[in-house]
Amino acid sequence: MRRNWIDLNSDMGESFGNFVLGRPEEVMKRISHANIACGFHAGDPSWMSRTVEWAKQYGVTVGAHPGFPDLLGFGRRLMNITHQEATDYVVYQAGALKAFCEMHGLRLQAAKPHGAFYSWGIQSEDNARAILEGFQAVNPHLTVYLPALPSFPLVSTAEKMGFRVVKEFYPGLNYDETGAITVKRSYGTEDVEEIVELVLRFAVDGQTTADSGDVIDVEGESVCVHGDVVNAPEVLDGLHAALQREGIAIRSAIHTESADILPLQERASA
Amino acid sequence: MRRNWIDLNSDMGESFGNFVLGRPEEVMKRISHANIACGFHAGDPSWMSRTVEWAKQYGVTVGAHPGFPDLLGFGRRLMNITHQEATDYVVYQAGALKAFCEMHGLRLQAAKPHGAFYSWGIQSEDNARAILEGFQAVNPHLTVYLPALPSFPLVSTAEKMGFRVVKEFYPGLNYDETGAITVKRSYGTEDVEEIVELVLRFAVDGQTTADSGDVIDVEGESVCVHGDVVNAPEVLDGLHAALQREGIAIRSAIHTESADILPLQERASA
Amino acid sequence: MRRNWIDLNSDMGESFGNFVLGRPEEVMKRISHANIACGFHAGDPSWMSRTVEWAKQYGVTVGAHPGFPDLLGFGRRLMNITHQEATDYVVYQAGALKAFCEMHGLRLQAAKPHGAFYSWGIQSEDNARAILEGFQAVNPHLTVYLPALPSFPLVSTAEKMGFRVVKEFYPGLNYDETGAITVKRSYGTEDVEEIVELVLRFAVDGQTTADSGDVIDVEGESVCVHGDVVNAPEVLDGLHAALQREGIAIRSAIHTESADILPLQERASA
Amino acid sequence: MRRNWIDLNSDMGESFGNFVLGRPEEVMKRISHANIACGFHAGDPSWMSRTVEWAKQYGVTVGAHPGFPDLLGFGRRLMNITHQEATDYVVYQAGALKAFCEMHGLRLQAAKPHGAFYSWGIQSEDNARAILEGFQAVNPHLTVYLPALPSFPLVSTAEKMGFRVVKEFYPGLNYDETGAITVKRSYGTEDVEEIVELVLRFAVDGQTTADSGDVIDVEGESVCVHGDVVNAPEVLDGLHAALQREGIAIRSAIHTESADILPLQERASA
Repeated sequence: MRRNWIDLNSDMGESFGNFVLGRPEEVMKRISHANIACGFHAGDPSWMSRTVEWAKQYGVTVGAHPGFPDLLGFGRRLMNITHQEATDYVVYQAGALKAFCEMHGLRLQAAKPHGAFYSWGIQSEDNARAILEGFQAVNPHLTVYLPALPSFPLVSTAEKMGFRVVKEFYPGLNYDETGAITVKRSYGTEDVEEIVELVLRFAVDGQTTADSGDVIDVEGESVCVHGDVVNAPEVLDGLHAALQREGIAIRSAIHTESADILPLQERASA
Repeated sequence: MRRNWIDLNSDMGESFGNFVLGRPEEVMKRISHANIACGFHAGDPSWMSRTVEWAKQYGVTVGAHPGFPDLLGFGRRLMNITHQEATDYVVYQAGALKAFCEMHGLRLQAAKPHGAFYSWGIQSEDNARAILEGFQAVNPHLTVYLPALPSFPLVSTAEKMGFRVVKEFYPGLNYDETGAITVKRSYGTEDVEEIVELVLRFAVDGQTTADSGDVIDVEGESVCVHGDVVNAPEVLDGLHAALQREGIAIRSAIHTESADILPLQERASA
Repeated sequence: MRRNWIDLNSDMGESFGNFVLGRPEEVMKRISHANIACGFHAGDPSWMSRTVEWAKQYGVTVGAHPGFPDLLGFGRRLMNITHQEATDYVVYQAGALKAFCEMHGLRLQAAKPHGAFYSWGIQSEDNARAILEGFQAVNPHLTVYLPALPSFPLVSTAEKMGFRVVKEFYPGLNYDETGAITVKRSYGTEDVEEIVELVLRFAVDGQTTADSGDVIDVEGESVCVHGDVVNAPEVLDGLHAALQREGIAIRSAIHTESADILPLQERASA
Repeated sequence: MRRNWIDLNSDMGESFGNFVLGRPEEVMKRISHANIACGFHAGDPSWMSRTVEWAKQYGVTVGAHPGFPDLLGFGRRLMNITHQEATDYVVYQAGALKAFCEMHGLRLQAAKPHGAFYSWGIQSEDNARAILEGFQAVNPHLTVYLPALPSFPLVSTAEKMGFRVVKEFYPGLNYDETGAITVKRSYGTEDVEEIVELVLRFAVDGQTTADSGDVIDVEGESVCVHGDVVNAPEVLDGLHAALQREGIAIRSAIHTESADILPLQERASA
């Protein structure tokens, strides 16, 4: 059950024009996979380009992170869109990001719906399919990142459609006893020790504690660390130190062979 | 000087959500090349997808038509953006359109800056380069559509960078004696006979009359017909009839071999 | 039960930049009350100003028509916003419209939530209150326009808060047996005779037929005619003729004394 | 020439949804006048409401700060809009803010065009008039805040139209020898000592040094302190301390009688 390695992913590229969210370059240095916003709920063309460049510079794998067309609500408010709209919004956003990846000589390798768009995607198999058909149109070989537990029917539909799914643990979000997590509307700073403890427990025992007090199993290879909290780099430094102590490597879940792995601890101090 | 064939291009995909501009499918049936808006000055993901599908259905070649991020002004107001922003805006928009083309099994083969973004592009070689670098990042083999006369330094820079340039005539816009045209802010309906006469004169003699009364030469292989005027299909029907009478074929300037050409007159009545 | 007069209201000012919806000035000439969009789901500052001017010119009373911040979905997609956001969105939009009314020497006298914002408002008393608190902040003496039947808890809360409520009949929308109506996403043209028949039956008998075939009672003083269908002016001409034949006057429900009433039939032919 | 008092104004309410700019409440505690963004170049309904509440709580006078409809460029990119559009954009934005002021029992007392909208306003008297007509429509008794030197023809036209003008000094922006200032696109942190020295020199001698090295005179009653730099509260604390040492009071330029003045030094520590 104990993991040899873990993937640290973060939502990146969420700044917009003059509005800088968090300390993005410092976060990029410390993660192994980046979900990059595509201009709908956050991000803009220039931040996308810059973020892809950083990902390349620091050896981080890149996924598209499409969301609802709701910059004002940061994509965290459910919107009642149609199947067709969902697919089109995915193709548009992931297509735009793919162009920046190609411009910078990187491959777009993954995708993950953002915030309330994810919540919409797990409402029905039809909704799940709408999102996944968009991913498929852009690249049928994308890896899909999804929260470990409550992602039915997204996980099952993705697997049926032939996608590889990487399951994620969300330290700091509230889990209920079914494993469902709550999308929060905004974040401040995080308690480094609390996050470290939650991640270690996930990495070592594959478990977490629900709000009810029940211990629940959480499988998965990746941990989603909030990139927009002010102290995200410090949270990540705490995770790097703790995981190193435990002998657990940090690497992108996209790379399945060890040769692909960069020495992240060195990279972070570059 | 008399042309054997002519390309009829139109700005397409300019509808946005519930706001339908003109009679887009009827226009698509009657043109040979479509410049498709990409969601900044006009267009949205669903209209882009639908427009690409129509282009495929009616055998029309497709180009990206990126503009300023100014839906309210329809991209017809000059904005003082930077070189980097221009490139990023092009990559984002053309990348998104390319994804829809790939989804529908079509190739994105051309590009053309819209409205005031074109005006910005001819302000300096640096501006021209900013736009063209965006095209290059998306596909270095794109054909660039540009107004015939006043497009320095866009034409020269495009050719220096190895792009093929297709030059366009704009019937109904005002030309001054240098060949410079004025971008209009909105259009109503057009006079079919006037447009037909202007296009025939361009196709047969390669000339037009400037506002000053001077006759000026206008080279080029393509005619840009406004797709957002209410009577655009009737204007195009008039052009089809007149060109057929003159024995001038209608085909996309992208296709250099006759085998690629579809019988447009039949297509229009499909 | 037979009415002496009826109010014809229409959603107006829904054009955006170059995107003109319907034939707005012709509609304005033929209605007695206008719900003016405020730039979130439709409309922009220039169209708001122009629309208020037309309202003044043709003696039409003016209400604010705030909606969700969703131009792409025309405010017809439910969004999961908070109480506070709802109030703030109303104050912003109605406040902006009020400024245009003051500029043109008109009073903002009414308000009505648009599309899915209305649907959100009838989800709970808390939601209803959120919208109405916004109206109250802008002007506690506003008249609130609401669909006759399914508007609980908006109607009851509005009355509790001291607002006058004008109830509307929606010819052409589907009513279920409880009187609930369905918000449509888009419209084409309408059948003039069908609309005329529905409105006469409402005005004379106070009834309509639900999808189930049941005859249901619909009280109210106002009829909401779609202003964005292409043949809205013809629909309105049909209504004017039919109502005149029946001896039923057309006047805004805002004006409670006959002295306020303008000879609308003459006005329409101005 | 030495001033008895000085007004510290700051551009406020520039956050948007989840994107928080600077430390707004801490800034509000330390200024005497706030120019509040109105949702076009920055700000949104909820931030406007919150910002007006803070202004009331801390006794700060409020002005509208309308800008170009360019959130992506933070209103700092020149846009080629028309006279009519400029007026309509002002009425819309200032009208919306006025509604929030009325909701919170405050008066909207001033206005000032933001960034590139200001630059547009000084291009011609016609442009100046377009902006000022918008202010006039919302409230002919508004005080207009403008940079001291390069604001012709905005200052002269404002005075001709009967507005009171408050002239501002901009510490930290580059002045050329004519007094023209450059609008910057983004800011980081500011050097507290440098700003304090610049402001004291303005307050005591009415002078500053241009880029050319020339000493130029800068009249005016107000200092515009950047509210979006990270250390804005520390800059303001430095100014408070220095001005107190010099015996120069801090008060809004709106209040012309001493009775209106709040003890700002106490207020800041509230």
